[in-house]
Amino acid sequence: MKTARVVIVGGGFAGLSAAKTFAHKPNVQVTLIDRRNYHLFQPLLYQVATAGLSPAEIAYPLRSILSGITNIDIVMGEVKEINQTDKIIKTESNNYEYDYLIMACGATQSYFGNDQWEGNAPSLKTLEQATEIRRRMYLSFELAEKEANVDLRKKYLTFVIVGGGPTGVELAGAIGEITRFTLSNDFHHINPKHTRIILVEAGSRILPSFSPELSSQSMRDLEALGVQVWTDSKVTNISEDGIQIGKEFIEANTVVWAAGVGANPLNKTISSNLDRGGRVIVEPDLSLKENPNIFIIGDQAHLKYGVDQTPLPGLAPVAMQQGRYVARLILNELKDKPRKRFFYVDKGQMATIGKSKAVAMFRGFEFKGFTAWVGWLIVHIYYLIGFKNRMFVLIQWSWTYWTFRRGARLIVNKDWKSKKD
Amino acid sequence: MKTARVVIVGGGFAGLSAAKTFAHKPNVQVTLIDRRNYHLFQPLLYQVATAGLSPAEIAYPLRSILSGITNIDIVMGEVKEINQTDKIIKTESNNYEYDYLIMACGATQSYFGNDQWEGNAPSLKTLEQATEIRRRMYLSFELAEKEANVDLRKKYLTFVIVGGGPTGVELAGAIGEITRFTLSNDFHHINPKHTRIILVEAGSRILPSFSPELSSQSMRDLEALGVQVWTDSKVTNISEDGIQIGKEFIEANTVVWAAGVGANPLNKTISSNLDRGGRVIVEPDLSLKENPNIFIIGDQAHLKYGVDQTPLPGLAPVAMQQGRYVARLILNELKDKPRKRFFYVDKGQMATIGKSKAVAMFRGFEFKGFTAWVGWLIVHIYYLIGFKNRMFVLIQWSWTYWTFRRGARLIVNKDWKSKKD
Repeated sequence: MKTARVVIVGGGFAGLSAAKTFAHKPNVQVTLIDRRNYHLFQPLLYQVATAGLSPAEIAYPLRSILSGITNIDIVMGEVKEINQTDKIIKTESNNYEYDYLIMACGATQSYFGNDQWEGNAPSLKTLEQATEIRRRMYLSFELAEKEANVDLRKKYLTFVIVGGGPTGVELAGAIGEITRFTLSNDFHHINPKHTRIILVEAGSRILPSFSPELSSQSMRDLEALGVQVWTDSKVTNISEDGIQIGKEFIEANTVVWAAGVGANPLNKTISSNLDRGGRVIVEPDLSLKENPNIFIIGDQAHLKYGVDQTPLPGLAPVAMQQGRYVARLILNELKDKPRKRFFYVDKGQMATIGKSKAVAMFRGFEFKGFTAWVGWLIVHIYYLIGFKNRMFVLIQWSWTYWTFRRGARLIVNKDWKSKKD
Repeated sequence: MKTARVVIVGGGFAGLSAAKTFAHKPNVQVTLIDRRNYHLFQPLLYQVATAGLSPAEIAYPLRSILSGITNIDIVMGEVKEINQTDKIIKTESNNYEYDYLIMACGATQSYFGNDQWEGNAPSLKTLEQATEIRRRMYLSFELAEKEANVDLRKKYLTFVIVGGGPTGVELAGAIGEITRFTLSNDFHHINPKHTRIILVEAGSRILPSFSPELSSQSMRDLEALGVQVWTDSKVTNISEDGIQIGKEFIEANTVVWAAGVGANPLNKTISSNLDRGGRVIVEPDLSLKENPNIFIIGDQAHLKYGVDQTPLPGLAPVAMQQGRYVARLILNELKDKPRKRFFYVDKGQMATIGKSKAVAMFRGFEFKGFTAWVGWLIVHIYYLIGFKNRMFVLIQWSWTYWTFRRGARLIVNKDWKSKKD
């Protein structure tokens, strides 16, 4: 039996699916490299940012998930260089030789050339960012509560979310719920219901990947929660004081960036065949044109697909299917079987807007309201890694659903030292 | 009916008990000031440091706990000055007038004049410190796993805990369990069982506030988990490389400080009547000798008690009873009733050493092993604030108990920014 050394970079949906497919295969020795020691269930990150869930409920140690699998080595490290000639991956501390390389590093946030905005408008891709947003949001209510100046109080109670995709919509909906229900009895000098929540979208409608009807349904649902939806609105500046949207300047203490998707800086070193957004354009079998032993999967890849050759969207089901596909392709190739092209089974897409409200599309069918929400709940709980987390999240959500309470409303600082140096 | 404005500083066990006793009393207007927006269940902080529990499972927002109580104002802020003459408390942003002042700020960690040690040996008083210890500990295993140099690997796999009180003992026991059970199948290049865990105590025995028999029982329990217990051992230096204990230098990547209890820096401004450790010496009714309208309770106070006039220990039951007592005293005084002295109902003390092992003392009775452990479990779950947290912690612990898994093993960074400035 032929053997191979496989290096997988990235333990997200794509990389982890590939790794799991290789589990216990005696002829494949796998090294999984990730900067983090955990797999993050990114679709629920907005719940951490709004204190509905704790970090550990949506993040699970890679070593736990892959515990006891002897043919998979896990390395916590950052890839610094890919040597395609000698087939070596270099991290800050070690080198790893490979016969096959699977890159599944995901995407980053793009500020469209305005990286200086990040300090005043965190994005929502990592646990650290989620707890930072949580800190800013709940701190704003605390500052407003003790502020006598009306203008400043208004500034503290203004939240702006940039980007009308699923993340922005779900975040805005959750903040709407919090101000209307969770915090309703908790303050004496402010009324959290008076919080101004603005969802800013540059395009003509929110959730542009959904049908126009579902877009306007979700807009109505957001407005019922007190969220102002500003479409056709372009952000031109973000500062400590607030955000410039077209000709209007909005004073705001909390701005969240959920807009552009950026490319991984590694991509430039992998291939010269990149799309406008910097993603690597891959062959129908997800490999590099110039190097068939390197595969790019998940959000890092641009795969022209279907009759109209549009790129597949950056969704978890796409990533997971690509991970499994590439692993099986390699296992088959070791048995001298020929490669087949990647085939995507459409799992639809969905977004939730607070309690009992969601929109979903699945193979031409559209769902909204309570039905869509229950579907959303089942899918997300089902896909959460590990039996325990699923159970925990279910309990946590039942609790939030019935009581509107959010347990994880902790304002945690970055600095842990008690004494100054 | 006489009315009064009461300011409570600190939302720990002492301050929160006082606040709850004042809830819905129409003649008392309370302001509760805390630097944090949550109440922290400190006895379980070592569980967060070892990834057994998530921060939100032992910390609960003060506004949730006191939600809907209209006569209690909550202020997130830091006290900068106490003006006893004008009866005003000053925070960084506001002033608060009081008729009665209840100080319940707790204690800090003392490095015995070596504050420079903190960077290499965090203590365990706050959530930030707990997640920092968690980060260092789990990062050490990751670094060891990919380290070829045997000496460095040994350094990564050496954990030193300074201080043989309940916190140090519980932390050492939990780390012992983790290395023996939780991580046993998770690494391929190191064996976590070879981790060296040293508990250092300057005195002649660990848990000195327990009986000598329970001390030696807990020492045997720790040793069964692979913990080396070094008594009569004095720490003379802590650096990046390790820790100097007497004549021996131990190379260690993770050192935790659970030794000295320090005084709140505010104490000096409150009274000139301090004990050697800097705690405020109070009257039998917990008030200041020079100012009967100011009360000091919980870990911040030194109350000479009983026939031998020894100070009461810094335990949660003492703090809670003092909080309730002072609140009732004030309510009675508003009805012109005379003050009575504080009377402490002994609730005993306990410490746990891993699965099914604990020691406990209660009014002359001693317990150990499984019985003590079940007692410990019941008491801690009972006292956890809020129905939800209690239920969650119970589920979490049952899970940990049966599987030895620890879900919160997340190495989370302090920096949340993705781009460099």
